[in-house]
Amino acid sequence: MKATSSHPSHLPLAVGVDFGGTSVKIGLASGAELTGPVESLRTSDHPGPKSMLRAIADVVDRFRQAPGGERIRAIGMGVPGVVDHQSGICAHLTNVEGWNNLPLRDLLQEATGLPAAVDNDANCATNAEWRHGAAKGHRHVIVITLGTGVGGGLVLDGHLYRGATFAAGEIGHVSVDFRGVPGPHGNVGALERYVGNRQIVDMARHLYSEAGQSEAAMNDDLSPRLLAQAATKGDAVALEVWDRVSHYLATALAGSVYLLNPEAIVIGGGVAQAGAVLFEPLQKMLFGMLPTEFTSILRILPARYGNTAGIIGSAALGLEVA
Amino acid sequence: MKATSSHPSHLPLAVGVDFGGTSVKIGLASGAELTGPVESLRTSDHPGPKSMLRAIADVVDRFRQAPGGERIRAIGMGVPGVVDHQSGICAHLTNVEGWNNLPLRDLLQEATGLPAAVDNDANCATNAEWRHGAAKGHRHVIVITLGTGVGGGLVLDGHLYRGATFAAGEIGHVSVDFRGVPGPHGNVGALERYVGNRQIVDMARHLYSEAGQSEAAMNDDLSPRLLAQAATKGDAVALEVWDRVSHYLATALAGSVYLLNPEAIVIGGGVAQAGAVLFEPLQKMLFGMLPTEFTSILRILPARYGNTAGIIGSAALGLEVA
Repeated sequence: MKATSSHPSHLPLAVGVDFGGTSVKIGLASGAELTGPVESLRTSDHPGPKSMLRAIADVVDRFRQAPGGERIRAIGMGVPGVVDHQSGICAHLTNVEGWNNLPLRDLLQEATGLPAAVDNDANCATNAEWRHGAAKGHRHVIVITLGTGVGGGLVLDGHLYRGATFAAGEIGHVSVDFRGVPGPHGNVGALERYVGNRQIVDMARHLYSEAGQSEAAMNDDLSPRLLAQAATKGDAVALEVWDRVSHYLATALAGSVYLLNPEAIVIGGGVAQAGAVLFEPLQKMLFGMLPTEFTSILRILPARYGNTAGIIGSAALGLEVA
Repeated sequence: MKATSSHPSHLPLAVGVDFGGTSVKIGLASGAELTGPVESLRTSDHPGPKSMLRAIADVVDRFRQAPGGERIRAIGMGVPGVVDHQSGICAHLTNVEGWNNLPLRDLLQEATGLPAAVDNDANCATNAEWRHGAAKGHRHVIVITLGTGVGGGLVLDGHLYRGATFAAGEIGHVSVDFRGVPGPHGNVGALERYVGNRQIVDMARHLYSEAGQSEAAMNDDLSPRLLAQAATKGDAVALEVWDRVSHYLATALAGSVYLLNPEAIVIGGGVAQAGAVLFEPLQKMLFGMLPTEFTSILRILPARYGNTAGIIGSAALGLEVA
C-alpha cells in the first residue's frame, strides 16, 4: 500500500495491529487513512506472546525511526478472541495457542513504550466503519462482515457495544430457522451456516445441478465472486443464489433491527463485494419486513474498508487512549 | 391493592401512569413498592388528550390531598406507542386516536404541575424490572413479556436502550423461521406468531386432536394457565406444548444473546405464570444453544412485577427527573 501523500503532516499517528490466525498486519494510521505501508508477520513464526510482542515492538521501532515517526502517539491492537477492552486482559484467542488470561494491553504498552488499547478484531473493524467509514456520524449501527464466517459489531447510543463478557455482536450465530442446520454451539439455523462463503458455493452447485447445468455445477472455480459476475450477466441460477442469500440475511437483519432500531447497517467482507446483485434484493426484502418507524431512518451501506479495517479501527482505538 | 404500611414515610413519591388501550391505571410509588391504591380511568371515556390529561390531573390532585401527598415529587407516564423520551413528544399511539405529534411531557407537566417523564409502556415495564425488580443491579438485560403479543425492552451498558426512533426492543417480531408464518409488517416467522396466548392454545388444540384427545382439544376454557396446570400434573400433550413454546423462545432468545451478551433475561407476562413447566425446558434449551462465554454470566429470571410494572416503572422514570 502507498502512503497517502496528501495527509496533513501535523496530525498525531497511531500504530494499528490486526492480529489474525495466519498473519499479523501492522500499519500506521491517522484518522481515516493509512499513512504508510503495512508490515506483516506470520503468526506461526511466533510461538507465544513474548516472541510476538517483541516482533511487533521491532516494527513499531522502525515506524518511529522513519519520517513522521515522532508523531506516533499510541498503539491499538485487535485480536481474534475474547478480550476485556477496559482491563486490557485477553481471556483467550480462537485458533491461536498461548494467549490465555494475559494482561495484553499492559504487555503491549511495556513492549512498545506507547499508550495501548486492545479489543477484539470485530470491534476494531466496527470502530473503523463507525469512526471513519460508512457509518461515520451515526449513533446506532450494526456492522456485519460476510466471509468464510459471518461476524459483526454494534454501535449503540454512540458507543461501541461489547456486552457483559465482551462477546456481543455475533450476528452470524443468530438463527433464521428453529429447525435448521445445527451449529457448533448447539444452536440451530445459524445465519453463517447459510450465507458463509462455502455455503453460498454449495447452494450454487446444488441449484446448477437441479437446473441440469452440470458444467457450471462442477466448476472448481465457483466462488461468490464468480456468482456475482454471473448474476450481473443475468445468469438465472446465480440470481436465484443471491436472492436466497438476501432472504437469509434479511431475516436475521430484520430481527436485529426490531431489537436495536439502528440508523445504519454496514455490510462488508468478501461476499459483500458482490455489490448490486446482493444489496438490491437485500434492501428490498429487508425493508419489506419492517414498518416505517424502523425504515424511515435506516440505511444499508457497503463497508468503506476491506482488509485494512482492522488496522484503521485499532489505530483509532489507540488514539482514544493516547 | 393495599398500601404498604411498612414504607418509610420520608421517601419521595412519584405518580406512575400506565396508559393502556382499555384503561389508564394511576398509582403512587416510592422505589420498589406501590404506596397506595391504584385508580383506573376508562380510556374510551376520554376522546382526546385534553380530557384525559384533565382526568389524570384530577387523580393526581386527590393523591396530593391525601396523607403523604406532600411527598409527591414527579409524575411518569408510559404509553402504548412511539414516544421520544428525550423531547417528550408522542409520535402516535397504537389503537388510541388523537395522540399524534403531541408534546406529551410538557402537557402532562402543565396539567399536573409536576416534573414529568414519558416513555413507551414496554420501556416503563423494563425500567421497573431493572431499577427495582428481577434485574436490579445488572447492566445488560433483556426483558421479554409473554401475553397476547410478545413485547420487550433492553438495558444495555447500564441504560434503558431505546434505539434511533425509540422503537427498539421488539423481540416479538424477531423471526424464528425464514419460511414461517407471515406477520403484520411483511416479516415472516415472528416469535409472537408462535408463542402468543392464542397461538399456544391453538397449538394445544391441534396436538390434543392428533393424540385423539378430542375432549381436551374442544375445551372452551383451554388457556396457557390451564395448560400449565395440566403439564404440572404430567399431561403429555401439555408438556409437549411447553416444550415447543420453549424451543421457539430459546431460538429467538439465543439470537438476542449472541447479539447482546446480556447478564439477565427477565421473563414476564401472563404466559410466564406457567412457571417451571416453561422455565425449566427454556433454560435447558437456551443454554444448550450458547457457548460458555455467554452462559457463564447469564441468568434467566421470572419478572418480579405483574400488571403493576407499568406504574412502578413510570413512577421511577418520573423520580429520575424530579
